Amino acid sequence: MKCTPDIDLRDVEEMNINIDPIQAAGRLTADAMKAVIAYGDGYSVCDNCRKPFRLDYIEKPPIATFHDDLAAFVGMDEARVVPGARRGFQAVAGTYVQKGDPVVLTALSHYTEFIAVENAGGVPHEIPKDENNIIRADAAAERIEEVTRASGRPPVLLFIDHVDYQFGNLHEVQEIARVAHGYDIPVLLNGAYTVGTMPVDGKALGVDFVVGSGHKSMAAPAPSGVLATTAERAEEVFRTTQIKGDLTGRTFGIKEVEMMGCTLMGVTLMGMMASFPHVRARVDRWDEELANGRIVLDALRSIEGTVVKSEMPRRHTLTRVDTSASFDLIAETHKKRGFFLSSALNKKGIVGVIPGATKVWKFNTYGISRAQAEYVAAAYIEIAEENGLSVVSP
Amino acid sequence: MKCTPDIDLRDVEEMNINIDPIQAAGRLTADAMKAVIAYGDGYSVCDNCRKPFRLDYIEKPPIATFHDDLAAFVGMDEARVVPGARRGFQAVAGTYVQKGDPVVLTALSHYTEFIAVENAGGVPHEIPKDENNIIRADAAAERIEEVTRASGRPPVLLFIDHVDYQFGNLHEVQEIARVAHGYDIPVLLNGAYTVGTMPVDGKALGVDFVVGSGHKSMAAPAPSGVLATTAERAEEVFRTTQIKGDLTGRTFGIKEVEMMGCTLMGVTLMGMMASFPHVRARVDRWDEELANGRIVLDALRSIEGTVVKSEMPRRHTLTRVDTSASFDLIAETHKKRGFFLSSALNKKGIVGVIPGATKVWKFNTYGISRAQAEYVAAAYIEIAEENGLSVVSP
Repeated sequence: MKCTPDIDLRDVEEMNINIDPIQAAGRLTADAMKAVIAYGDGYSVCDNCRKPFRLDYIEKPPIATFHDDLAAFVGMDEARVVPGARRGFQAVAGTYVQKGDPVVLTALSHYTEFIAVENAGGVPHEIPKDENNIIRADAAAERIEEVTRASGRPPVLLFIDHVDYQFGNLHEVQEIARVAHGYDIPVLLNGAYTVGTMPVDGKALGVDFVVGSGHKSMAAPAPSGVLATTAERAEEVFRTTQIKGDLTGRTFGIKEVEMMGCTLMGVTLMGMMASFPHVRARVDRWDEELANGRIVLDALRSIEGTVVKSEMPRRHTLTRVDTSASFDLIAETHKKRGFFLSSALNKKGIVGVIPGATKVWKFNTYGISRAQAEYVAAAYIEIAEENGLSVVSP
Repeated sequence: MKCTPDIDLRDVEEMNINIDPIQAAGRLTADAMKAVIAYGDGYSVCDNCRKPFRLDYIEKPPIATFHDDLAAFVGMDEARVVPGARRGFQAVAGTYVQKGDPVVLTALSHYTEFIAVENAGGVPHEIPKDENNIIRADAAAERIEEVTRASGRPPVLLFIDHVDYQFGNLHEVQEIARVAHGYDIPVLLNGAYTVGTMPVDGKALGVDFVVGSGHKSMAAPAPSGVLATTAERAEEVFRTTQIKGDLTGRTFGIKEVEMMGCTLMGVTLMGMMASFPHVRARVDRWDEELANGRIVLDALRSIEGTVVKSEMPRRHTLTRVDTSASFDLIAETHKKRGFFLSSALNKKGIVGVIPGATKVWKFNTYGISRAQAEYVAAAYIEIAEENGLSVVSP
């Protein structure tokens, strides 16, 4: 079916159970869909923009209030909306990182953190992961010490993923922040997989910046996200423009340099706002989400040869499995090769896993119901059994 | 009426004639509205993202083709979508401007160009406008020469607004680009008011970069925009990541540093794409748009005391007028003060002019029909006459 003459209709979410690793928690709520329809036009939020002419001051629609709510939601003092978590990383790196400065990331940092560092001219240093793919505070302490000695000064910024994109593991954020602060290193929490899915309290974690993704985890349209910080750091990262026209003497009010002025002037912000009451409520149902994830994972584990690569027990719905010794054995001789698995799943209305992947792959059960989780679990077992794999209770 | 419990329904475009200076050309087309509904979910364009995993390579929906079409549309070799024109300025400034570098802008440059320069640490130098508020090549030549002498080296980048936000005037872009190239200065054309409304050919203008705004002039949701360039400059501004994890050895494929990887992964891009065939067609009807603008402006000029501040004859639908000696005289004694004008207009279903403004103000007739232009023209005359102002044919 066509959406426009050149564009197919997208009905992935309506017609299937989607367990895509990055799409699961960015599906719109019904309220966000309504807001998207009402606020689709370009500068749709600017109807009532009055002095001092900045997005986060607009009261109608209630954008100002939303900014306060957003800061409180992640346990910080100040928040701004940004065009994706990556633009939050860029703003923080742009503020603290000068050319040649050492910056600490981790062996599980997302590529957008690296690019933010590259863009600012920083030199990346990774904290290694342990044998269970967890970033630990002792490794952080060791690496910071080593980098400080080698660079002759402490790193200027540390990025830590709350939950990483590779394994969906939780890391020792609080302890790492404490270590970093011993060297006066500001700490940025990448909450792209956590802000909007599970409870996140930046102050309790002791971090300086909390970055979240609207389109990844807050049921919002792309690109959207949040950059939240403490009152102290807000003066730095949200500094206002000082530049002046040398002939005209023009100055530019209270626009913020790293935000490039206003950020999300329409549909993305309104979708985020419309979903927000639902998002705020859903983080308290995180246990149910984990339970649904367990149902699917237990099924996969019951298929002989399947290995879970993520930490166990699971503390996030994004999970990495290795089916080299189960589904991939079938792929070796199946006429559809590795595509047999995604093809069988698609026939059952389950989508979101990379077609052809039968070795190491990821899935995310976020947002599906218990009944859907049981359906997905049964589907995997059925496909395994149909293809002659042994299924044993784990 | 409510959109959600916390958000009012927005029906500004459905229920009124909107002559807002920045909103007029960002109103969605019907096809964009359909795309917004179908692609509202977070990462909605990523269903079929395959190696090399970059937005502009996705074939389904036809994002790759759209990028080619977009470059051709503005007469350049390569194009990328960005979260607003300002993020295009930021990418170019980030590529060419180092701390302390002289940069040339104009006395009519938009604030986001200044902030892009500030963000990169550049030092701004304005080309003055002439007495008719036009930026001329001779003034550019003089200023470049002066800045080069004072800085001991030529400026590293020049920004020129195709049509400026203050007067809606067209400037001597082609001639200025020629002058700048004499000093090897790359030239960025800010086409926020022109790309998507009138024909723009970057190669013919001789500029290195064409930046356009989706939400301002391409009937697209916010934030969206385009950064287009020549094959030569593309290697610089679209350079791919070189950073490497120092422990893991990880590299990050062909993601582009200034783009921060992928940019518009959902609704904004799809709205832009769905509107594009209509936008491509509408720039050829620019004369009709100018004619409609003239109908409204002639009516305003017929109200004694009104002065047009923009260049005449008009070459853009964004126009600045001074009604200090017409409508503002009424405001002095009217019980609604300056609000009488916007209030009277609103009653007639005309919106988009700042409430209370009766001295110097702007309007943009882009996208309204001839019948609507005649209605707006008649409304202004009626309001003038009702308040005792003289109306004379210009």
